Amino acid sequence: MALVIRNTPRTDLALVDALGAIGVATLHEAQGRRGLLGAHLRPIYRPVRVAGTALTCEVPPGDNWAIHVAVEMAQPGDIVVVTPTSPCEDGYFGELLATSFMAHGVRGLVIDAGVRDVADLTKMGFPVWSRAVSAQGTVKQNPGNVQVPIVCAGAAVRPGDVIVADDDGVVVISREDAASVLALAREREANEVAKREQLAAGVLGIDMYDMRADLAARGLTYRDYEG
Amino acid sequence: MALVIRNTPRTDLALVDALGAIGVATLHEAQGRRGLLGAHLRPIYRPVRVAGTALTCEVPPGDNWAIHVAVEMAQPGDIVVVTPTSPCEDGYFGELLATSFMAHGVRGLVIDAGVRDVADLTKMGFPVWSRAVSAQGTVKQNPGNVQVPIVCAGAAVRPGDVIVADDDGVVVISREDAASVLALAREREANEVAKREQLAAGVLGIDMYDMRADLAARGLTYRDYEG
Amino acid sequence: MALVIRNTPRTDLALVDALGAIGVATLHEAQGRRGLLGAHLRPIYRPVRVAGTALTCEVPPGDNWAIHVAVEMAQPGDIVVVTPTSPCEDGYFGELLATSFMAHGVRGLVIDAGVRDVADLTKMGFPVWSRAVSAQGTVKQNPGNVQVPIVCAGAAVRPGDVIVADDDGVVVISREDAASVLALAREREANEVAKREQLAAGVLGIDMYDMRADLAARGLTYRDYEG
Amino acid sequence: MALVIRNTPRTDLALVDALGAIGVATLHEAQGRRGLLGAHLRPIYRPVRVAGTALTCEVPPGDNWAIHVAVEMAQPGDIVVVTPTSPCEDGYFGELLATSFMAHGVRGLVIDAGVRDVADLTKMGFPVWSRAVSAQGTVKQNPGNVQVPIVCAGAAVRPGDVIVADDDGVVVISREDAASVLALAREREANEVAKREQLAAGVLGIDMYDMRADLAARGLTYRDYEG
Amino acid sequence: MALVIRNTPRTDLALVDALGAIGVATLHEAQGRRGLLGAHLRPIYRPVRVAGTALTCEVPPGDNWAIHVAVEMAQPGDIVVVTPTSPCEDGYFGELLATSFMAHGVRGLVIDAGVRDVADLTKMGFPVWSRAVSAQGTVKQNPGNVQVPIVCAGAAVRPGDVIVADDDGVVVISREDAASVLALAREREANEVAKREQLAAGVLGIDMYDMRADLAARGLTYRDYEG
Amino acid sequence: MALVIRNTPRTDLALVDALGAIGVATLHEAQGRRGLLGAHLRPIYRPVRVAGTALTCEVPPGDNWAIHVAVEMAQPGDIVVVTPTSPCEDGYFGELLATSFMAHGVRGLVIDAGVRDVADLTKMGFPVWSRAVSAQGTVKQNPGNVQVPIVCAGAAVRPGDVIVADDDGVVVISREDAASVLALAREREANEVAKREQLAAGVLGIDMYDMRADLAARGLTYRDYEG
Repeated sequence: MALVIRNTPRTDLALVDALGAIGVATLHEAQGRRGLLGAHLRPIYRPVRVAGTALTCEVPPGDNWAIHVAVEMAQPGDIVVVTPTSPCEDGYFGELLATSFMAHGVRGLVIDAGVRDVADLTKMGFPVWSRAVSAQGTVKQNPGNVQVPIVCAGAAVRPGDVIVADDDGVVVISREDAASVLALAREREANEVAKREQLAAGVLGIDMYDMRADLAARGLTYRDYEG
Repeated sequence: MALVIRNTPRTDLALVDALGAIGVATLHEAQGRRGLLGAHLRPIYRPVRVAGTALTCEVPPGDNWAIHVAVEMAQPGDIVVVTPTSPCEDGYFGELLATSFMAHGVRGLVIDAGVRDVADLTKMGFPVWSRAVSAQGTVKQNPGNVQVPIVCAGAAVRPGDVIVADDDGVVVISREDAASVLALAREREANEVAKREQLAAGVLGIDMYDMRADLAARGLTYRDYEG
Repeated sequence: MALVIRNTPRTDLALVDALGAIGVATLHEAQGRRGLLGAHLRPIYRPVRVAGTALTCEVPPGDNWAIHVAVEMAQPGDIVVVTPTSPCEDGYFGELLATSFMAHGVRGLVIDAGVRDVADLTKMGFPVWSRAVSAQGTVKQNPGNVQVPIVCAGAAVRPGDVIVADDDGVVVISREDAASVLALAREREANEVAKREQLAAGVLGIDMYDMRADLAARGLTYRDYEG
Repeated sequence: MALVIRNTPRTDLALVDALGAIGVATLHEAQGRRGLLGAHLRPIYRPVRVAGTALTCEVPPGDNWAIHVAVEMAQPGDIVVVTPTSPCEDGYFGELLATSFMAHGVRGLVIDAGVRDVADLTKMGFPVWSRAVSAQGTVKQNPGNVQVPIVCAGAAVRPGDVIVADDDGVVVISREDAASVLALAREREANEVAKREQLAAGVLGIDMYDMRADLAARGLTYRDYEG
Repeated sequence: MALVIRNTPRTDLALVDALGAIGVATLHEAQGRRGLLGAHLRPIYRPVRVAGTALTCEVPPGDNWAIHVAVEMAQPGDIVVVTPTSPCEDGYFGELLATSFMAHGVRGLVIDAGVRDVADLTKMGFPVWSRAVSAQGTVKQNPGNVQVPIVCAGAAVRPGDVIVADDDGVVVISREDAASVLALAREREANEVAKREQLAAGVLGIDMYDMRADLAARGLTYRDYEG
Repeated sequence: MALVIRNTPRTDLALVDALGAIGVATLHEAQGRRGLLGAHLRPIYRPVRVAGTALTCEVPPGDNWAIHVAVEMAQPGDIVVVTPTSPCEDGYFGELLATSFMAHGVRGLVIDAGVRDVADLTKMGFPVWSRAVSAQGTVKQNPGNVQVPIVCAGAAVRPGDVIVADDDGVVVISREDAASVLALAREREANEVAKREQLAAGVLGIDMYDMRADLAARGLTYRDYEG
């Protein structure tokens, strides 16, 4: 049996967009270094940044039927997040599906598998993070699950969670944590302004962060070169 | 012993060029989802598209002598397809060989190994699909085989077969199938125009393809979210 | 215990810059096909070329404290070369550290691990060769070693050795060999000019290099196609 | 902050042991082809089979402190399931920790990282499924989380879920599903007895399953060899 | 469309068995270092050696229906050789299929994908070479091709070719070459007896093969250690 | 040019044998968690343990001539350590070379490439750690270097250094450090006896090591399960 869950809750788009103004690395730090999807997911073009609400999709190896099913559940602001039920690098997604996604306001695709038509997708400005680029076609015989909680590239993703993706990769932030992560991330960004100025002026990080005593306590020893 | 086979047949270039007007993904579908080379072969620059007739070359690990031998067999419109006899990521090919290839009308290189001088190759506009970029030099001590049937990146390639390569990867189409695959691919492209319009207008793929009954028959079930 | 070695010798920058005018593949050939770092180290943007003196740094998995320590040892012209003590793809380095590096005249980073903020690093024009791009943050709890001899991506690197890196990868040239490798590389480049002209004019490499007898002696045999 | 959750519920051991009498492949089928951990997790010795309740543990790269913390939470029948917060192959676990685990009734270890002392672990009969064997030592500086829901090798695992592991790999069965999966798996095993007898007697599967019509409907065509 | 080719020719079993008395490495050398399947195919138990005639089978990702179809084509002495149409590590094969294979005289399985029930297969003494061990189940929805020429693990295999597999891997020998390869391999084995005796007696290979002049000509230079 | 360095110093065999009585993991810890070769080097049979003095050998891809050259330099107690100049998985070594090695007192082989005849090597009791098992043959055309300092599997190895290898992997200990590492490793082993007893008696590691205060200081927090 394959399931589609309707009317799943979504994070408010204003909150999503505010998170999307911040980079993936900072958001990941702000939520305690959690929620990153595996670094093998790479964008098909760069630079790129997008934020949206997760529309989840679980597909069998070599079968993209569920992605077609997922479109019906799409709302503007969604990012479709696809995971295969066993490892697969086939090209599940191309420009026809992207055309359909864009018509429904979908902002991007995150897929732990392959995609194709990447020249067209780049021209269309439809951002994709994938494990592979592969022209290998897929069948439509087994519908998978849509809008169920999934594991994608090692991270747990639920429908409606916030996805932010950029040149550095993809992070998921749960609906419940979105507001607090935003606050922490903004604080972090604010703190970095002063640090950046000091570092640009040549101040050493180990002085700026007052680390010399800690380093010595941890055994750091300086010696002169003796050949 | 190493062999060079002379006077191998080639697909007509008009047919090759007609196939080259179509993307790899479509051609792969049109010939029944066959003939793709492994997705680990990636172009050194993007966007790119090229079509040509396979000039095959089999090389020992770390030895590129046979590629020099292959140039003599080259005809305008060829794409050199190189496979190592055991896995190797050395840089078999660089700008000097590319200069020689271009002088003989070779259109590109597909190699299940490494290449170097990729900045120069990019400037020269000589397209390459490879497993790796590596500056590692090779020797010239063992001639391999030229214009024999080979397996490259998991696909069987014969001299004169059609090679089409783009941002999505590389596909081989046999001499015998080239005309029929072209016809099927054109039909496929024509069909996609109307589909694209419908999808762009927001029609759901599952409606456009009339899939709802099939999906239900395969067990697809809709439920409302219950938290 | 963690060590920082002060006052390590460096290759003269004039020599470094002269080497930096030559590509990695040519330098690697000129020093007898030695000194390449593994081809899995890839630049975060292309095209790119940089040369500098190695500032070495050894870091625990998931801990970038030693990179902060390394900045104090930096001199204009250095390239920081970082190796983890066990394999790790975390994002050890981002734009704040790059800001600090640039303020101290560091020309680039070579790291057998991950980096993040690659969109910013690209905008800043700070070149990086890495194993991965990953937003995964690191801690500051264990200082590693700075300016000790290391193995990075399979190559032995000592402080002050010359590092040249471009689109093809990264090569290390020892302080002692820098001058002689420069001479050999220039000779090689000079020789290639005439070869390039001949090849561009359609001369076959096997004729230009006078290889036909050798090829026959090694068993190369020509046959006509028989279907 | 690092968390240890106390008093997490566990699946009843009688149920666990009944599931452990059945192989991983059958259990995975019985619960709808779900719950397998990635096939890169391999046993350090074979043959082997174990079942237990998941005691979850999340560790930083190169830091095994949380595994020491986990022992205090152990109850007889547990299998410790360890996931690193970023990919790592260090040797987090060896015979001293195994000695401690065995003293507390822990039945085995599943770890998406490396282990060491595998000769000793084999002699002790302590079963381990890991991503790697590596002597690389780890530090004790950052406690991770214990008995929180985790993702291990691509599968979501909660404290107290059933883990069954054998030569084929590792499967997780949720506490809620354990009884129903047991029933379905037993049914499946029962059905296989008759099938096995028929197949052993030479009956073709396509006849036993009555597949010939379906195959023809799906386009299966028989032809005679023509050379 | 999926094809089954009936009445494909097979190499004579007496010849197959004679080849099976010789190891894979020797046979591979005897046929000019050709025909090895990729070294990622590993036996599920060791030591092991088997020879047979290839019964080829091409399967979609995650679908093992064609393996069931293949049984009907089986003859005593066959080894089933399975390749997926795109990379897949699912467990296509287990003890029920092995039971069926054994009932029809099939001697083993070579599969560039995953298998399961390896404990049972080991007990049954049914030899398998695979890319992975995985409990992941497959579906029966798309019949693939049976007894067509395939590429498996980088090697071209035709129905009826000889497959020999042992602890070192898998080699394919074409029907046409089987007799000549046998002769050459036996000669090679005979030659090795005398060499083995000399080497066991302490004669240096470089003397036995009279290599010193060649080595000097290739630039080999001896120096004394100078610290 | 290829070099053979004669009369390189070796660690005293009594010291080597004393180190060989201790496991790789303990020795690696005793020398400050340094000197491990990459975990991708695996023994061809288990259990196994060997110690010896490194006889180093650098080989081109697909060419094992230097291994034949190395035998002349062999002394009883040596372990041959082979690294390819670029990554290669060919089968550089088999039972004939092992016969020759054993005749000269060589105790084992460590190779960052492939080996073959592993069934024979296992029967002969000749231990090998390799990256791959592959029947792929190699040529004898380019002598490499023998008894020069090399990098093997990420670790720097000099002729005469101590190599200890077991089921966990391979460690190198420099000639200069051998005695001190032995002392530290014995101390470490002695300390572990008491720890093992306590752990076996059920004492928690976090109590035995008195870690509770440290854990709390690092933020470890205990909570009760709340569903």
